[in-house]
Amino acid sequence: MQFDNHAIGAMPSRQRAALINSLSGFKSANLVGTADAAGRTNLAIMSSVVHLGSHPPLMALVVRPGGEERHTLANILATGCYTVNHVTSSLVEAAHQTAARYHRDVSEFEATGLTPQWLEGFAAPMVCEASVKLAMRLRDHQELRINNTHLVIGEIVMAELPEHSLLEDGSVDLQICGTVALTGLDTYHEARSIKRMAYAKTDLPPRVIENTGT
Amino acid sequence: MQFDNHAIGAMPSRQRAALINSLSGFKSANLVGTADAAGRTNLAIMSSVVHLGSHPPLMALVVRPGGEERHTLANILATGCYTVNHVTSSLVEAAHQTAARYHRDVSEFEATGLTPQWLEGFAAPMVCEASVKLAMRLRDHQELRINNTHLVIGEIVMAELPEHSLLEDGSVDLQICGTVALTGLDTYHEARSIKRMAYAKTDLPPRVIENTGT
Repeated sequence: MQFDNHAIGAMPSRQRAALINSLSGFKSANLVGTADAAGRTNLAIMSSVVHLGSHPPLMALVVRPGGEERHTLANILATGCYTVNHVTSSLVEAAHQTAARYHRDVSEFEATGLTPQWLEGFAAPMVCEASVKLAMRLRDHQELRINNTHLVIGEIVMAELPEHSLLEDGSVDLQICGTVALTGLDTYHEARSIKRMAYAKTDLPPRVIENTGT
Repeated sequence: MQFDNHAIGAMPSRQRAALINSLSGFKSANLVGTADAAGRTNLAIMSSVVHLGSHPPLMALVVRPGGEERHTLANILATGCYTVNHVTSSLVEAAHQTAARYHRDVSEFEATGLTPQWLEGFAAPMVCEASVKLAMRLRDHQELRINNTHLVIGEIVMAELPEHSLLEDGSVDLQICGTVALTGLDTYHEARSIKRMAYAKTDLPPRVIENTGT
């Protein structure tokens, strides 16, 4: 089954959004917490958090200029602070609901029953109920000319992880964290590790370290 | 368990890479196919493909300047074409092996036993064995000053999907496709949908369309 760019362009807009949002593969599901200069909180689900580098520890975030996400962007630019919080299975309903177009005066924390958790000296709230929680400082920002989305680059200044989720090699077991993945616009997934691979070398065949699949 | 930026900066480099690569959540697992001007093919696994917009259909890709990925970047800039191919469970070993530092003259297709699939008039090979396959035209490219990674923005000009994977609303069932997700540097996951959520509205409580979890 093939679609070329003409067929994609001719689709009804909601269907096209569902299709194109499915094509990159599994996406991260994070709640981005911010506050405005007066301390009023905001929370928005985002599926576009992506790893940018480890040293310094950087993540990028794509923010659409309209809709609910505009309050998040305005707050990040005003305070230079935001948080990234992993959505877990039990948080899916509340997390998804943050995408509704609440008025700027309404905090999605209150509207969805989630609890702000403050770090001393840091102007954005984490989500108390989340598993992995990251405090981020804005490092760079630009509007991408091609479609007016905004690329927000931040540095991880604090990472909070559930006990026992950190493995010996430094990686985090996201199943222990209960973190979920997103596909398309609205479908949440639990993931089960099937294989852990050894560092790839040209003079060795691919090597499975751990085969956890059935 | 908390890590601040000093603790993160003091970690051994390989452990820090494993940790920071885990913190964004689940990542897409895609094979990026390219060819140089002479038609010599290249294939590289990437976990940084991210949705950028639906109209036009755009995806971004973060490419590190060094290592294996530099051949991919050089080819994309030379031809303006690349492909994005979903990794499935049965492709994990071959896909991961493309990360080894093969010499430029060695095609990762041959080295890993995967089959190039050519579209007429398109200068980059898809992966025949993959499920979802996308032909991409380069639309924009920049080096990000902050850490010298490259942001590659491409438009989807052709999408090939497995039969029966397209749902009525336009979304794609990635379980039917067999697509896997990545965490950290080396761990591959199968995902199982747990909940499908209705479009979020401020005047309605969150509504689950389909509850597929146990």
